[in-house]
Amino acid sequence: MLLDRGLDGLQNRLVGLVRAHGATVMIGRTLLQQARPISFGFKAAGWLDQLIRCRQTLGRVRTSATVLQFGGAVGTLAASGDRGLVLLTRLAERLELAEPVIAWHTARDRLLEIAAGLAMLGGCLSKMATDAALLMQTEVAELVEAGEEGKGGSSAMPHKRNPIAPTMIIGACSRVPGLLATMAALMVQEHERAVGHWHAEWAPLAEILCLTGGAVQQANALFSGLRVDAARMRANLDATHGLIYAEDVSVALAHHVGKPEADRIVKLACERAMQKELHLREVLLQDPIIGKCLDETAMNRIFLPENALGLTDKLIDRVLRVASGQSDPEKPHA
Amino acid sequence: MLLDRGLDGLQNRLVGLVRAHGATVMIGRTLLQQARPISFGFKAAGWLDQLIRCRQTLGRVRTSATVLQFGGAVGTLAASGDRGLVLLTRLAERLELAEPVIAWHTARDRLLEIAAGLAMLGGCLSKMATDAALLMQTEVAELVEAGEEGKGGSSAMPHKRNPIAPTMIIGACSRVPGLLATMAALMVQEHERAVGHWHAEWAPLAEILCLTGGAVQQANALFSGLRVDAARMRANLDATHGLIYAEDVSVALAHHVGKPEADRIVKLACERAMQKELHLREVLLQDPIIGKCLDETAMNRIFLPENALGLTDKLIDRVLRVASGQSDPEKPHA
Amino acid sequence: MLLDRGLDGLQNRLVGLVRAHGATVMIGRTLLQQARPISFGFKAAGWLDQLIRCRQTLGRVRTSATVLQFGGAVGTLAASGDRGLVLLTRLAERLELAEPVIAWHTARDRLLEIAAGLAMLGGCLSKMATDAALLMQTEVAELVEAGEEGKGGSSAMPHKRNPIAPTMIIGACSRVPGLLATMAALMVQEHERAVGHWHAEWAPLAEILCLTGGAVQQANALFSGLRVDAARMRANLDATHGLIYAEDVSVALAHHVGKPEADRIVKLACERAMQKELHLREVLLQDPIIGKCLDETAMNRIFLPENALGLTDKLIDRVLRVASGQSDPEKPHA
Amino acid sequence: MLLDRGLDGLQNRLVGLVRAHGATVMIGRTLLQQARPISFGFKAAGWLDQLIRCRQTLGRVRTSATVLQFGGAVGTLAASGDRGLVLLTRLAERLELAEPVIAWHTARDRLLEIAAGLAMLGGCLSKMATDAALLMQTEVAELVEAGEEGKGGSSAMPHKRNPIAPTMIIGACSRVPGLLATMAALMVQEHERAVGHWHAEWAPLAEILCLTGGAVQQANALFSGLRVDAARMRANLDATHGLIYAEDVSVALAHHVGKPEADRIVKLACERAMQKELHLREVLLQDPIIGKCLDETAMNRIFLPENALGLTDKLIDRVLRVASGQSDPEKPHA
Repeated sequence: MLLDRGLDGLQNRLVGLVRAHGATVMIGRTLLQQARPISFGFKAAGWLDQLIRCRQTLGRVRTSATVLQFGGAVGTLAASGDRGLVLLTRLAERLELAEPVIAWHTARDRLLEIAAGLAMLGGCLSKMATDAALLMQTEVAELVEAGEEGKGGSSAMPHKRNPIAPTMIIGACSRVPGLLATMAALMVQEHERAVGHWHAEWAPLAEILCLTGGAVQQANALFSGLRVDAARMRANLDATHGLIYAEDVSVALAHHVGKPEADRIVKLACERAMQKELHLREVLLQDPIIGKCLDETAMNRIFLPENALGLTDKLIDRVLRVASGQSDPEKPHA
Repeated sequence: MLLDRGLDGLQNRLVGLVRAHGATVMIGRTLLQQARPISFGFKAAGWLDQLIRCRQTLGRVRTSATVLQFGGAVGTLAASGDRGLVLLTRLAERLELAEPVIAWHTARDRLLEIAAGLAMLGGCLSKMATDAALLMQTEVAELVEAGEEGKGGSSAMPHKRNPIAPTMIIGACSRVPGLLATMAALMVQEHERAVGHWHAEWAPLAEILCLTGGAVQQANALFSGLRVDAARMRANLDATHGLIYAEDVSVALAHHVGKPEADRIVKLACERAMQKELHLREVLLQDPIIGKCLDETAMNRIFLPENALGLTDKLIDRVLRVASGQSDPEKPHA
Repeated sequence: MLLDRGLDGLQNRLVGLVRAHGATVMIGRTLLQQARPISFGFKAAGWLDQLIRCRQTLGRVRTSATVLQFGGAVGTLAASGDRGLVLLTRLAERLELAEPVIAWHTARDRLLEIAAGLAMLGGCLSKMATDAALLMQTEVAELVEAGEEGKGGSSAMPHKRNPIAPTMIIGACSRVPGLLATMAALMVQEHERAVGHWHAEWAPLAEILCLTGGAVQQANALFSGLRVDAARMRANLDATHGLIYAEDVSVALAHHVGKPEADRIVKLACERAMQKELHLREVLLQDPIIGKCLDETAMNRIFLPENALGLTDKLIDRVLRVASGQSDPEKPHA
Repeated sequence: MLLDRGLDGLQNRLVGLVRAHGATVMIGRTLLQQARPISFGFKAAGWLDQLIRCRQTLGRVRTSATVLQFGGAVGTLAASGDRGLVLLTRLAERLELAEPVIAWHTARDRLLEIAAGLAMLGGCLSKMATDAALLMQTEVAELVEAGEEGKGGSSAMPHKRNPIAPTMIIGACSRVPGLLATMAALMVQEHERAVGHWHAEWAPLAEILCLTGGAVQQANALFSGLRVDAARMRANLDATHGLIYAEDVSVALAHHVGKPEADRIVKLACERAMQKELHLREVLLQDPIIGKCLDETAMNRIFLPENALGLTDKLIDRVLRVASGQSDPEKPHA
């Protein structure tokens, strides 16, 4: 229940970010290198998409894994006489648990299912927190965690904007995979009741729940107070002096000189830009061949991040439709 | 596919065991101690029930986790122009994969889902194998693995009946929890494409698949050649000289002398039986009070394992109905 | 300190068992099958040998891993002026910690070293507990945990001798490997102070310490109250009706008829013994060839477990010498 | 041997970096935020210090864990007659293995010791690789991996300098913690030879060796071709417009106005610098009180990173002495 409320809040916050930042251009990064432009809304949509799937998994687990265990010493209901099955049904109803087909004292897949669902959530939150912490780096500074006054600061280091919530989330979720391994290993339980593996289950399961539940709370704190520095995002797009648009130039040029020649020209221009520490557009505009093919208007169009976003808007819409329950998370193949 | 065939075979073999051994009485064991009678069919029904759930999980995972990934460098489909979404749909159809809502380069929950489903199967198989290996112990000898001639034997130790398939299954499945932890930890992937965690995924995922797939094959070998020693099972039921029926005597006696008195009498009788190394029935028959309440016919009824099975037959039926698709694995609460 | 006292006690208890039971014959078991005779003292000596190694590892870790961390924000001792190194030395002396060469805020090998040493101890204790639980099985009954009156008993199941301490030990130690994986994963810490992995360390490390410390306490409880049933051990040696001595017969016979012929004869005799459910000695005595080679005295010598113990006494002595500090745990190669 | 050669090379490369870059100033980072100045040599000295400890651990493991296993079916050396112990010694000598005190078929601490030593190395390498990948980020760009021509590049994204070696190292080492958990869990082995856990050991152990061995090779590649951009490091030190020196100003000012007043003044100046986006030195020079206390020479001294390095040089020397074998890695307390 508590977890649900936390997840509702988190989903709403992410939906808000996605809606607000569809046009907030920023660089997409692969292998920690600047790659190609995206929007911050698109990035948040990827987080949201994964969160929704995790919630569906957890919802399904809640139904399938909350099953009554009732069977007596060895599961035969021998102590309950003929009324055993009636008792089983009634007890399940009372406790609002599903009725098991047969006792599951030593068939513990359901506990692993819960643990795995929560580990999935933990991985999802930790991925978001890692992205956030990386975007909060002093040198990147595209996001700032705007917590309470003074939080995350340091008197000796007044410039520090410590990523408090990401640290808490990463710290909590980094403990989950090991606990998940424990839950999986504990499935091996002897005969009708196990020696030890049965007794070991509850602590790690509770720990996984606490850690991921706490991480959800921190993720709410993170996203409710997040400051998105759109200007810095735009500024960082220029860190490579236009090289992130090299492919776009090639594509545009290929209409005039063919792909091989376009690639060759752009490659040379990129090398020159890097050597001379010039902006790629400058280098290109100095090139007589390119000048004939692409005028300044065409060039301006190419070097505008808004024109390099591909289908981010449409993809964002798809995620928002899923988030609002209007479409399914996946369109399965026929 | 191959895994499915293996699981079909395994399910059929277990159904066969459940059907054949509903009346094969044996002792149920808790904490590796003899507890109360069950039937071998009931025990196998517990294995089967868990296997069916694991198969359902894997079936669901196959649908939900086999999703196309297609999005270009940063997931925006920027290189595909306007046709991006059409391409996405067509490609998914061609590859018989579900169509994603948005790129999931660094949203790896689906891979953990596959790994967790297989880990669940591994735990299920390892539990069966552990039970089998324990039942094959020289001192228990209720099951024998009747592999190929000479397999599992030893010339220097001709009496050995090494549990080959259980050893292979336990060996394989014991490697899965650690690999599952790896898959969970690898979910933390930076930005639009990760540094290393992305590259690390495939080996552990493939390994989990190989290990559990191999374990399914070995489980088929185990159950296709399993010899169930019903006589030994019945003999082992007498290892405690009737003490496993102490509760049944109490219940029967309580009708005559009330529960507290019945408990007191039976407790004394049990202690006497243990001290004198006598069969509990003998001790009871010598007791004047008990003799008045329970005659030899009543006593014989109590000390017959078939009468202590509780609802095993009905529970077995429930599992077989689920196995044949006639009813759902769980009757969820309203 | 507390752990040390616990380990001292445990080592003493094991030394006591080893000394007391060098002549207590029992069957050695491989793959849960009866294999060849050993003594209970020999078995306990194997436990003791491993425990001593674990203690040495932990002793070494205590020295190498308890190192001062002192360096200021980024480890440069910049805030301490020129006196930094003097302060470092004095502080280390005061806290009775070793002095580090350089700050280790994000070089966390020492914490993994502690965790690994404790995990080793956990594995060692869990191995003993597993052996004990298996030997306490109703059908084996070679060991009984003689705890406080009523502990581990069950009113409804008066025959039960639940292995309480082994259950606690196995339960506690089964949680350690996953926590160890967490400690290893947490070694990856960014730059001069980490985002999250640093914050996550203490809980799993403390948990490993609690779990293994508790297991040491339970192991003391187990071995201080252990009842060794030497009669049952001897009785169980006869469970295979002499087949465990087949190799000894072969070896004795080979002096008379050569190894191939001896092997052939014994193999046939074993098969006959199993088919007819006869004791191997009976079958052998009926065989005319064997009768000529091995008379009844020779046969009696072969079928006595005391004569099949190999070098157990000498190996026990070696372990006891190590336990008393008279010799090194390993004689390393030159 | 191969691993040793790789580790020799790696240590030499790190020693080279430490020696070369003691005066290469850069910012130290905590929680991914710029904190206080260090030198790149100091950073590399931290890596080196940990590597040396890992090597010592591995060296010790090589001696303590490479022990002969020889004992026959149940470890009693029964099949070897009286010559058992002599054979044991001779065989150990021949194989250049240490001689065990007693058989260790099911006492597997040594294998965990090897795995833990390698996991420690893996964590150490992965920490370096993570630091390197972070320093190679487009926005940070303090390190560049100068691999073979074209390696790590992308024709569509000519600006990319993918951190190939860090990716390989992180990818390989991220698989080790899970495998370490497996090795720890496998220590639980039944009686004189285990059912499955014994058979499962070799694959994960070999895998850990391959993964860490491969990571050593990649670390050599990384550090042999590393380009350190000292100019960029110095430029990045100015990213906070002098705020990283706030504490130094406070300390200097405190001599004149006392610590509380100094802290108050500097705090206000920092806030002003951040609001107005001015360099802290500018703000300070405009302040009448500060102007009286600290002249421009004093101010220049404060805002020079070389003056904020604390004892990095001395700490580097300590590490280099350890690396050259001139002093011990730790000076243990008396």
